[in-house]
Amino acid sequence: MNCAEYLIKKLEELGITELFGVAGDYNFNLLYAIEKNPNTNWIGCINELNAGYAADGYARVKGYGALVTTYGVGELSAINAVAGSMAENIPVVSIVGLPPQKAIDNSTLLHHNLQNPNYKAFCSAYENVVASTAFITRDNAKMEIDRIFKVLVKNKQPVYIAIPSDIAEMEISDRYVACDWSSNKDVLEEVGIKISEKINNSKNPIIIGDSLIKRFDAELEYREFVFKSQIPVTNFLMGANIVDMNYEKYMGGYFGSLRNPIVNKYVKDTDCAISVGVIYSDLNSFGFDLPYNINDHIAIYGNYTYINGKRYDDVKMADVLEIVTRNIKPKDIKIDKPNLGYKHKDAEGSPLTSDYIYPRIQEFLKENDILITETGIVSQGIAPIKFPQNVTPEFQTLWGSIGWATPAAFGAALAKPQARTVVVTGEGAHQISAMEIGSMMRYGIKPIIIVINNGGYTTERLLAKEGSKFNDIVQMNYAKFARVFEGDVWATKAETAEDFDKALKVTQIMNKLCYIEVSTEILDTPQLTKDLISKLKGKNAKIVPPASIYDKNQEDEYDFSNIETTHDLTNIQYETVVHKGFNYSTSENEGAQNE
Amino acid sequence: MNCAEYLIKKLEELGITELFGVAGDYNFNLLYAIEKNPNTNWIGCINELNAGYAADGYARVKGYGALVTTYGVGELSAINAVAGSMAENIPVVSIVGLPPQKAIDNSTLLHHNLQNPNYKAFCSAYENVVASTAFITRDNAKMEIDRIFKVLVKNKQPVYIAIPSDIAEMEISDRYVACDWSSNKDVLEEVGIKISEKINNSKNPIIIGDSLIKRFDAELEYREFVFKSQIPVTNFLMGANIVDMNYEKYMGGYFGSLRNPIVNKYVKDTDCAISVGVIYSDLNSFGFDLPYNINDHIAIYGNYTYINGKRYDDVKMADVLEIVTRNIKPKDIKIDKPNLGYKHKDAEGSPLTSDYIYPRIQEFLKENDILITETGIVSQGIAPIKFPQNVTPEFQTLWGSIGWATPAAFGAALAKPQARTVVVTGEGAHQISAMEIGSMMRYGIKPIIIVINNGGYTTERLLAKEGSKFNDIVQMNYAKFARVFEGDVWATKAETAEDFDKALKVTQIMNKLCYIEVSTEILDTPQLTKDLISKLKGKNAKIVPPASIYDKNQEDEYDFSNIETTHDLTNIQYETVVHKGFNYSTSENEGAQNE
Repeated sequence: MNCAEYLIKKLEELGITELFGVAGDYNFNLLYAIEKNPNTNWIGCINELNAGYAADGYARVKGYGALVTTYGVGELSAINAVAGSMAENIPVVSIVGLPPQKAIDNSTLLHHNLQNPNYKAFCSAYENVVASTAFITRDNAKMEIDRIFKVLVKNKQPVYIAIPSDIAEMEISDRYVACDWSSNKDVLEEVGIKISEKINNSKNPIIIGDSLIKRFDAELEYREFVFKSQIPVTNFLMGANIVDMNYEKYMGGYFGSLRNPIVNKYVKDTDCAISVGVIYSDLNSFGFDLPYNINDHIAIYGNYTYINGKRYDDVKMADVLEIVTRNIKPKDIKIDKPNLGYKHKDAEGSPLTSDYIYPRIQEFLKENDILITETGIVSQGIAPIKFPQNVTPEFQTLWGSIGWATPAAFGAALAKPQARTVVVTGEGAHQISAMEIGSMMRYGIKPIIIVINNGGYTTERLLAKEGSKFNDIVQMNYAKFARVFEGDVWATKAETAEDFDKALKVTQIMNKLCYIEVSTEILDTPQLTKDLISKLKGKNAKIVPPASIYDKNQEDEYDFSNIETTHDLTNIQYETVVHKGFNYSTSENEGAQNE
Repeated sequence: MNCAEYLIKKLEELGITELFGVAGDYNFNLLYAIEKNPNTNWIGCINELNAGYAADGYARVKGYGALVTTYGVGELSAINAVAGSMAENIPVVSIVGLPPQKAIDNSTLLHHNLQNPNYKAFCSAYENVVASTAFITRDNAKMEIDRIFKVLVKNKQPVYIAIPSDIAEMEISDRYVACDWSSNKDVLEEVGIKISEKINNSKNPIIIGDSLIKRFDAELEYREFVFKSQIPVTNFLMGANIVDMNYEKYMGGYFGSLRNPIVNKYVKDTDCAISVGVIYSDLNSFGFDLPYNINDHIAIYGNYTYINGKRYDDVKMADVLEIVTRNIKPKDIKIDKPNLGYKHKDAEGSPLTSDYIYPRIQEFLKENDILITETGIVSQGIAPIKFPQNVTPEFQTLWGSIGWATPAAFGAALAKPQARTVVVTGEGAHQISAMEIGSMMRYGIKPIIIVINNGGYTTERLLAKEGSKFNDIVQMNYAKFARVFEGDVWATKAETAEDFDKALKVTQIMNKLCYIEVSTEILDTPQLTKDLISKLKGKNAKIVPPASIYDKNQEDEYDFSNIETTHDLTNIQYETVVHKGFNYSTSENEGAQNE
């Protein structure tokens, strides 16, 4: 087994069957290994940044992701996506194919180099944004690969592996080396006792959950802890819906002072905050309102725990939750559970504004959907939704790189093709990476893409000085754009609430990628965004219209008047493009094929 | 004057009037300064990588370029473009807007951070790919800005400046500090004498010019040296056409052993190679065939010179050329000047292959055009062209990042709006950054874009194992894609040589962006590529067809049968889209405006 094949096998063992990236002449031996392995498929993307986002989306759903790029030009194009995975504890393996060892040893000026070649320069750049880097040589290949997988699994953070092209072909031992690790038993026991005592002695404890519960694969243990303890529970934005929202002790999401005052008061007044896997950042916490340091109470992280400000290392989140669940007595606390979610709005008579759009999306979502929400105002529109059970809402709230959502949805959909994937994005963010919908069609992926077009970078319009033009962006016909690719798509533009309502219904009978541009007034904004901006700018800040107003009189993309509002939509007319390209059958693991 | 305004003023002094980038909430104060300065214009791009390429293209034409991004997500998305500028000595200033100083001092977990914020992490990543970085603080602002501009001007390499948002607003002194530097007179004199002696004593010297002559602004001095010395002259690929190709002592470009054997023999046998501004890389030299170390003869670089292997620092290329020109005696060497360029091919009867396409492009080019050539097979198609006078062909041969050409052409066209800009790109590379044509239309830029579609990553198909599928890419309708944006465009698809011939003629009467998809057989390849691939793979390598064959039967985008082959093309029908967006009037420096 050669080095590349061994590496791909290690990835396969983690459940990775799709690897994302862009082919380049220095990474061929890695791609040959992917093509040779019967259980892995190469997913070529439009560009490396998108491939990095796709690997991130894939890892959010499937646990781990992998990205393959070429030396210099490829890896540097993807570095922002990998940094985003680092920020949010998404374990992505970034693998880079390098020129052969001899060129490295001789500093030969091959293409994709700076003029004075330092073949470790880009690895050094990556050291700033990953948990660990491995620069593979003839002598360290197996040892370094095995080492870096342990780092990956323990930290659930990206790692970086650079492999010279000839070393990728070198035969190495495939002797099995386990990646997993175990909690330190003594520390675990101490932590279990201390936390249980603290909880048992508390009067009004609260559990605050967040996304790292998902990243460290501790959702089951977390839910058991929540249910057995009977402690009231809330979450930061990225941790939404890990506990079913109908659960009687679920108090709704935490929005700081902006929304849901009952949970805000409870979180403020608690004598025992139990945070599990939280990322206490500006937007994830809606403004840093906690009157205490979260680590001064109980804070359980992926591989360490804080109790009263003291850090205990080498204990797994799942193990800590399990031991605590065993040792605590259920609480008997009455809560005043608020009404959650948006209220229903009728399409008829409603303008097509955020006040209609997000309640309608709430009703559209169904159990087991994957929901990918772009950074920007759409995330504040989605945040107050009451999600159906087992919907996995994903936000990139800490890193917040606009453009992430569309390719991330590509990766997420490939990770779980049996689920419906829904993407909600603003059009400014979407433009950055929109070409990747071509890859979705190429590989037969069928998400629902909702592009909310309110004329530019809206969050920034709200924050910037009146009269600034730099938040204007390129205007385009999105539905027409979606039809440019060789693939099967239903694309439309909704200009009224009724259009949007009908379009969402139409998607339910379309067995293909559905793409809906939602055309709102410029600056249309969810209430939560308005409140957040006011908080950031100062209480009485007024929201002013931008300097430029776009002409939105574009051609209608679809005549909605022909659609009935009942669910009997089988006889509608819609444009379809015959899919001539690839048939990607994930369920049978056949890989990319030509028809 | 605040810090941001001072910085923008320094850029303006270097001739930068357009700054590229993407707005973000941490860089507003930089953008306000650009909007406030009457001589600078903000050019918002689709994404940061494209913005970096555009700044690179701009700098290639205008001398310097600038890029403005936001902390983390923005700067990391652009790092590959900046590294490319570093590789090829393109002086681009990469400016990043950071959160305010207090957040940095307190390591506050604002968005766009890793979970344990280190606000210098991304600056550290950049240190690997730029000449110097400046992390601006309250105390070092003016000193660091002035220092970094000196590095920029002396090295003609990218520099990086990170500015916290509140420091950008801080008032600083605008006392003038010169950026320029002077040669060390003693070293210059010594170098002048030594080189002149060596040349005067040589029998069969040869001058090899390359792109760094342009980067270090020494074209005039170089041409004077060439003409006065009467020494035969050639160039590496990136240095094409600095000396007029009709000049009697111009021997044609150097292609190693692949082409032009007369120049190859001369370069091999010379007793005195005088290289000026060369980048001796694999593809720029067509395979490292020189039988000697170029620095062991005479090698004049931007701010240092090698003579007989000894390095002399702190001497400007232009100064060295000037002193040598003064001191040498003209040579009297007869050369056997080869016929340069492609021979004319008639459209009628020719298949639409590289054998027709590149000779036709040669005839299409006219004096003063800017020609941007993408990496990949198109660069080997363009390389043998005999260029008209003052055409500036730009290749990114060392860094070779596919996707560079389209946004670079956007930047180049804005840098010199009075010239015609022509882009030639393969479709695989084009996909990576194709959205930027939306920005071209938005800002009223009218390049000719030639997209050669031969069905995937062709260079890699030629290099990879038979049967590999990873060089297949997303298929799309390019002409339809070009019409998606709100802007003025003429787009077509050429499927025969006559189509292509006519399409190029049509562009001459179109006062708008012209976009031509040239649809060739899969694997169609210029002869020079075939030769190069054979050299890289071994002499008798055969080129095999790929595993997948695309169905190319897409709808005709334009009916060429209505076009006369004469130049009387005024009554043809073509689709046009009314330009509703921006009117960007560079000549009057009015900036982006709404109509």
